[in-house]
Amino acid sequence: MSHAVENVPVPGTGTTPSQKRYLILAEEFSHDPHYAKTARGVMRYRREAVVAILDSKRAGETDDGVPIVGSVDEGLRLNPNTALVGIVTQGGHFPGDWQELLKTCVSKGLDLENGLHVRLHDIPGLPELAAQHGVDLRDLREPPSDLSTATGENLEVDATIVLTVGSDCAIGKMTATCELDLEARQRGLQSVFVPTGQTGIAIAGWGISVDAVVSDFLAGAAERLVVEGGKRGNLLWVEGQGAILHPIYSGVTVGLIHGSAPHLYVLCHEVGRTVVEGDPTGSPIVNLSELIDLHERMSLKLRPAKVACVALNTSGVSEQEAREAIGEAEEETGLPADDPVRFGAGKLLDAVLKVAP
Amino acid sequence: MSHAVENVPVPGTGTTPSQKRYLILAEEFSHDPHYAKTARGVMRYRREAVVAILDSKRAGETDDGVPIVGSVDEGLRLNPNTALVGIVTQGGHFPGDWQELLKTCVSKGLDLENGLHVRLHDIPGLPELAAQHGVDLRDLREPPSDLSTATGENLEVDATIVLTVGSDCAIGKMTATCELDLEARQRGLQSVFVPTGQTGIAIAGWGISVDAVVSDFLAGAAERLVVEGGKRGNLLWVEGQGAILHPIYSGVTVGLIHGSAPHLYVLCHEVGRTVVEGDPTGSPIVNLSELIDLHERMSLKLRPAKVACVALNTSGVSEQEAREAIGEAEEETGLPADDPVRFGAGKLLDAVLKVAP
Repeated sequence: MSHAVENVPVPGTGTTPSQKRYLILAEEFSHDPHYAKTARGVMRYRREAVVAILDSKRAGETDDGVPIVGSVDEGLRLNPNTALVGIVTQGGHFPGDWQELLKTCVSKGLDLENGLHVRLHDIPGLPELAAQHGVDLRDLREPPSDLSTATGENLEVDATIVLTVGSDCAIGKMTATCELDLEARQRGLQSVFVPTGQTGIAIAGWGISVDAVVSDFLAGAAERLVVEGGKRGNLLWVEGQGAILHPIYSGVTVGLIHGSAPHLYVLCHEVGRTVVEGDPTGSPIVNLSELIDLHERMSLKLRPAKVACVALNTSGVSEQEAREAIGEAEEETGLPADDPVRFGAGKLLDAVLKVAP
Repeated sequence: MSHAVENVPVPGTGTTPSQKRYLILAEEFSHDPHYAKTARGVMRYRREAVVAILDSKRAGETDDGVPIVGSVDEGLRLNPNTALVGIVTQGGHFPGDWQELLKTCVSKGLDLENGLHVRLHDIPGLPELAAQHGVDLRDLREPPSDLSTATGENLEVDATIVLTVGSDCAIGKMTATCELDLEARQRGLQSVFVPTGQTGIAIAGWGISVDAVVSDFLAGAAERLVVEGGKRGNLLWVEGQGAILHPIYSGVTVGLIHGSAPHLYVLCHEVGRTVVEGDPTGSPIVNLSELIDLHERMSLKLRPAKVACVALNTSGVSEQEAREAIGEAEEETGLPADDPVRFGAGKLLDAVLKVAP
């Protein structure tokens, strides 16, 4: 696996992603599949940057070879330079005791990275403490202050741009994107994961949380991401958001489609899901063929994009049912389909590379 | 014309739109069709709320019966309660001498309304002066601070919702919307113009500038507008923004489509325009039939919307060419078409009412 293409300074910081040495803060939650979403994502896709995980309940254990420590002091022996908030909470707030934990990290000289809605900069006393100790506070959801409208530079990026889209939110678009990038990097390709949400940003160490951007600058933010991605490699996997027909988040989806100017889409769907999640109106999910046609016709007129393959999330069904669902999706769409987590991303990557410009 | 349905307090203020008595500030610009966009819009669609126009170069003249005055003091004799910034400038800044003009208005006890990007609240000394004189500063582009994601309440609004959409930005969507609303009010219908941009807000005295909203809350903002509109009447004309295939602003367009949950669309197009305006990439405009199909299929699954008619802006061609273009649009789409400014909005209103639920 080559990380050479990642040795580009992270905008707004002096360090490159590969210089990061993370202490992941997952106190009380490191075992929880839901709350530890960020910790798990970083452990799966950026394992090499993690030196320790903090969770006093599991101190002394290891996770994929990474020591789990019981205190910040214990973690410091492994020489981290950044503490990463590894949890995702309902409403995006910090759990009760976390403010003290964050202050401890800062006073021990660790930079802080946080993808929750609540900002580090809004925690009373923390910015002053950070200034005193000369450490950085990075709120990963905070958009850059100098965004503007899209300029057309997205069409000039010298890379193949692939965007994950889907039938709904929370169906595994980020995971499919990361798996495809990981598979491509393992094959030695100059592949880059382009993050558009807080967990993705925590995983990659750069990016913009596009749903936090003012609507006028949505496509501009997506454009900036692919321009930046083009400096890091020539095969860009842009993390999709929302869904083109999602009653709540479709604006973000379409802004991302036009701003990131993909050559190809990977269409994601969760087997068995028939109703849009988190939508109180119970809106039905339309079929894959209709989604393919809509995405292709909604693409930029100067960058007509095709769906290359279908990524299915089969985590809710048996292996036998998964294989049947994959066969059915291939029959319905005429495109290669697979579950990149369950069966590996090789088949989908092949499908993308076969039709890439 | 009945304004009874407008006698609802403007959210965040104690006054109803019809209690406004505007002094329109158009100093040096009242004759300019481009810069005086807001002044002209208010004069055309909310004439009854205007008591005077300030433009010292034309002092002593009248405009549609409204006196043009040379100074704020002169305007005060006509008993205005609000000074409205009537101009739209490149970049959204105030012209040189305007800060003094605004301070004069405030110190004479007038509320201020402003739709420019630069906020009244950011003009040094102005908020303090306003507090001292007990007047309100209203920045019309500033979104409400309590927005959230869409909830599905848009599907519960007890009104017919009509959204203007189009082949591009700046082709007359707001004008078509206002003309249809005006025609409907003149017929005695409980019709409401629902503004989604700063000029529309200045015209109607309420609304949300949806392009200034954080992307996550785009549909939520549009939903709030139709819920509010439903309290004011039962035939809502929602001002569209951008275009579904606009490389820069499509996110706003689609968020508005899903958040406002229209029953019907009015499709707007400017005769002769073939390339997206303000897009550096020179993206071509697709034909009307394709736009109709895309808008209908991109509508909410629980609120399938149809295009009711085509509103053409024929301002760039002769009357003969306009009539030909209208005939061609009707032939291509199979729908009624007309230019509501040039030939009146009656035909298009009939088309909408004929298919309204």
